[in-house]
Amino acid sequence: MRATLLYAAGDVRVEEVPDSAVKLPTDALVRVTASAICGSDLWPYAERKPEDGPARMGHEFIGVVEETGPEVTTVKRGDLVVSPFAISDGTCEFCLEGLQTSCVHPQAGFWDDQPAEGAQGEAIRVPLADGTLVRLPAAPDPALIPSLLTLADVLGTGYHAAVVGGVSPRTRVTVIGDGAVGLLAVLAARGLGAGQVILMGRHPDRTRIGREFGATDVVSARGDEGIAQVRELAGGDGTEVVIEAVGTMSAYLQAVGIARPGGVISRVGVPQYEDAPIGWDSLFRHNIRLAGGPAPTRAYIAELMPDILSGAIEPGKVFDTGTNLDGVPAGYQDMADRKALKVLIRP
Amino acid sequence: MRATLLYAAGDVRVEEVPDSAVKLPTDALVRVTASAICGSDLWPYAERKPEDGPARMGHEFIGVVEETGPEVTTVKRGDLVVSPFAISDGTCEFCLEGLQTSCVHPQAGFWDDQPAEGAQGEAIRVPLADGTLVRLPAAPDPALIPSLLTLADVLGTGYHAAVVGGVSPRTRVTVIGDGAVGLLAVLAARGLGAGQVILMGRHPDRTRIGREFGATDVVSARGDEGIAQVRELAGGDGTEVVIEAVGTMSAYLQAVGIARPGGVISRVGVPQYEDAPIGWDSLFRHNIRLAGGPAPTRAYIAELMPDILSGAIEPGKVFDTGTNLDGVPAGYQDMADRKALKVLIRP
Repeated sequence: MRATLLYAAGDVRVEEVPDSAVKLPTDALVRVTASAICGSDLWPYAERKPEDGPARMGHEFIGVVEETGPEVTTVKRGDLVVSPFAISDGTCEFCLEGLQTSCVHPQAGFWDDQPAEGAQGEAIRVPLADGTLVRLPAAPDPALIPSLLTLADVLGTGYHAAVVGGVSPRTRVTVIGDGAVGLLAVLAARGLGAGQVILMGRHPDRTRIGREFGATDVVSARGDEGIAQVRELAGGDGTEVVIEAVGTMSAYLQAVGIARPGGVISRVGVPQYEDAPIGWDSLFRHNIRLAGGPAPTRAYIAELMPDILSGAIEPGKVFDTGTNLDGVPAGYQDMADRKALKVLIRP
Repeated sequence: MRATLLYAAGDVRVEEVPDSAVKLPTDALVRVTASAICGSDLWPYAERKPEDGPARMGHEFIGVVEETGPEVTTVKRGDLVVSPFAISDGTCEFCLEGLQTSCVHPQAGFWDDQPAEGAQGEAIRVPLADGTLVRLPAAPDPALIPSLLTLADVLGTGYHAAVVGGVSPRTRVTVIGDGAVGLLAVLAARGLGAGQVILMGRHPDRTRIGREFGATDVVSARGDEGIAQVRELAGGDGTEVVIEAVGTMSAYLQAVGIARPGGVISRVGVPQYEDAPIGWDSLFRHNIRLAGGPAPTRAYIAELMPDILSGAIEPGKVFDTGTNLDGVPAGYQDMADRKALKVLIRP
């Protein structure tokens, strides 16, 4: 079978790899019908060192179950399924609390950490299939596939940001970052009732989608100028919720500058830093809180899917580009160059 | 009148200063009947540089109103009052939301930042008296005064830590620090229903009070050993809430090590650092949240006072030492040497 490998920064190849197969009784083998390149794939695409060896890529997919191990009970051959970006058993205390990204099962973890599997390929072995996979309706309108695929990561991640940020009709919201997660955080914040949602982003083709998703204001300036503009738009003191959907230190500092006293910074961009200001001058003085982390998108799929099936939301708009596997290397480069917002892969 | 001044690290003096007096129409002049030395006073006591000049000290007091400006309406001459450690107008949007420590009034701020007033003295000018002061019952049992004085800071601060940490009957709690705030955070956490409250502290005379306040476990070890012991006591994964009532980097790192995935670190010890780990390896990976800041104790006084007056709680137990103004310099040293937990001053 063919799959995507990242050999080093800028070096993505689609190659023949050993066929994925069921190995454990709790596994499922899924034939991938739709996958994606994620904004977070761009970090290793920018930085991976050749000496670390090639990495299998991709953590978002929809596919058809081809085979299941004997202990799998919730999905069967022929089912259309979606997988979150994390593998989880569905039975540990964290899974039961809806924090599947902290599942304690030894086989649990992120797709990105699986050495021999990846979603940007023809097929994938899914460990802990009962806990991980969610069945989709048997034959959805093909036009819904891009939106359903966002349940794997970007929609659930944007929604997580809004939920742990405590977005409600009583909060104003700033979203930093006009990538797919940022745009879907806008959608989620509006869905949770926020009246004012300020999107910070500098790509007009993206912020246009942000407005379609409900952004009430767009600020293209960054740094102190961007902070000042947002504060002014929000009445002078910042917004109760700031969703940080980038992951850089500059985005974090922007969030600190925008958060209203007593407010919360909700981070879903994977931090590209470890230490950052959280003392008296940044968070403590005005009781600003910090929330967020890898989204347990598994927890949100059942809640969000009906709105996709009914057409109430169309998160699949974040896919502005499509390709087969052959086009994946170019897709990475287009996303890195900001020519593409998000690439849908139909292997 | 006499008041306490900190000239430099280790150099506290009680001296004659200009009499405090009403200056603005919204001021009150209060004759101090009970004040205290706070654990947070020990930071400048350890570090203040002589070139910064002497600082007036003290931010917790009970007293009798001696005079009021013409615009003061809620307290009058002869009233017994308590003051939170922050001055606030009571009318701005943050005050109305219960975040009086972020009051936007130009005269608002912390007692510690007032150049010419301090609670460790005979009298004090209170700006924005209507927003700041709270009336106490006319003639409370004198035995209740120490407990009522804790409403100014340490009880309200411990309570704030528990509230913003989301303590409930469903959460296990660790409290780092056996100072007055840590001990009262134990009391508050138990009051909010936590079944398990683990106190980390190494002074048996203090942790004994912690047990009286409801601590179910005491861990005297620190660092990795302390973290391991707490995690084991809490079932292996840490506690849902970690209250950090010290303010040092080592206490913060201890909190990071103890927080359960999805849990919250609630800080009320004034951070002695600005940058600290909050990235993938510390907070982000397991969706650990951060909360806390200077406690708006003004917001909690009405809620907490009845339990003191009824005898349901006795937070004044944190005062193990009493003195008049003459004994204040020795009181600082005793607290710095950990010979005294908290010093009550009756000027």
